[in-house]
Amino acid sequence: MKVSHIEHLGIAVKSLDTAIPYWEKMLGTPCYNIEEVAEQKVKTAFFKVGQTKIELLESTSPEGSIGKFIEKRGEGVHHVAFAVENLEDRLAECADAGIQLIDKAPRGGAEGLSIAFLHPKSTGGVLTELCEDKNK
Amino acid sequence: MKVSHIEHLGIAVKSLDTAIPYWEKMLGTPCYNIEEVAEQKVKTAFFKVGQTKIELLESTSPEGSIGKFIEKRGEGVHHVAFAVENLEDRLAECADAGIQLIDKAPRGGAEGLSIAFLHPKSTGGVLTELCEDKNK
Repeated sequence: MKVSHIEHLGIAVKSLDTAIPYWEKMLGTPCYNIEEVAEQKVKTAFFKVGQTKIELLESTSPEGSIGKFIEKRGEGVHHVAFAVENLEDRLAECADAGIQLIDKAPRGGAEGLSIAFLHPKSTGGVLTELCEDKNK
Repeated sequence: MKVSHIEHLGIAVKSLDTAIPYWEKMLGTPCYNIEEVAEQKVKTAFFKVGQTKIELLESTSPEGSIGKFIEKRGEGVHHVAFAVENLEDRLAECADAGIQLIDKAPRGGAEGLSIAFLHPKSTGGVLTELCEDKNK
């Protein structure tokens, strides 16, 4: 598969209000976007560090995947997202390689991207997201 | 703090022999360096994805931090490394901001970098490494 760069790194946080000032200071750059993704039961906050975004994820419900992640493992890195082209073809390529797809077809993610997740059981424990920016 | 980009992402793996072919296929790029860091009880393997490296970490001893990490949490993202300049000054800045330092002074890491780790208890659960490339 051809990956051009790490599109973003998803970090699960208990509270955006606490995490945003910390990451603004650590990265030396302001949070430039806050966006709720209702379908995924998260509120997200974005920073840009070189080619890659840091995406903070706060759960809007204990039933959401971020709420469950934090309950089980605490705050920390939740997923890694790679930038690809032709996402549908990439998912077919992953399926052919025996990788378990969480999303069998691309769906809408934050920041207008087309996204799909791969199951960490078949990606060496790394919850992996593939992202395509069709607006490029 | 001024961070120019994500220098690398450290991923704990049980076996480089298994993980390297997977990541070569996933990223579409060959592993370009394998290096043992005896002091940290790890063997590392590197890939380049845009500005950022993926660093796979295999423990050479169950007593090492990667061995313990995998025993506790399984394979997955272990740490995030940010590229900075003047690492000693950055560590002083972190200490002033109340961040707990694992390394109070820079030490040598893989690929000839000068590195220091920050404690995840004070970095939102993200084991954070700061890296300076003095050979640039």
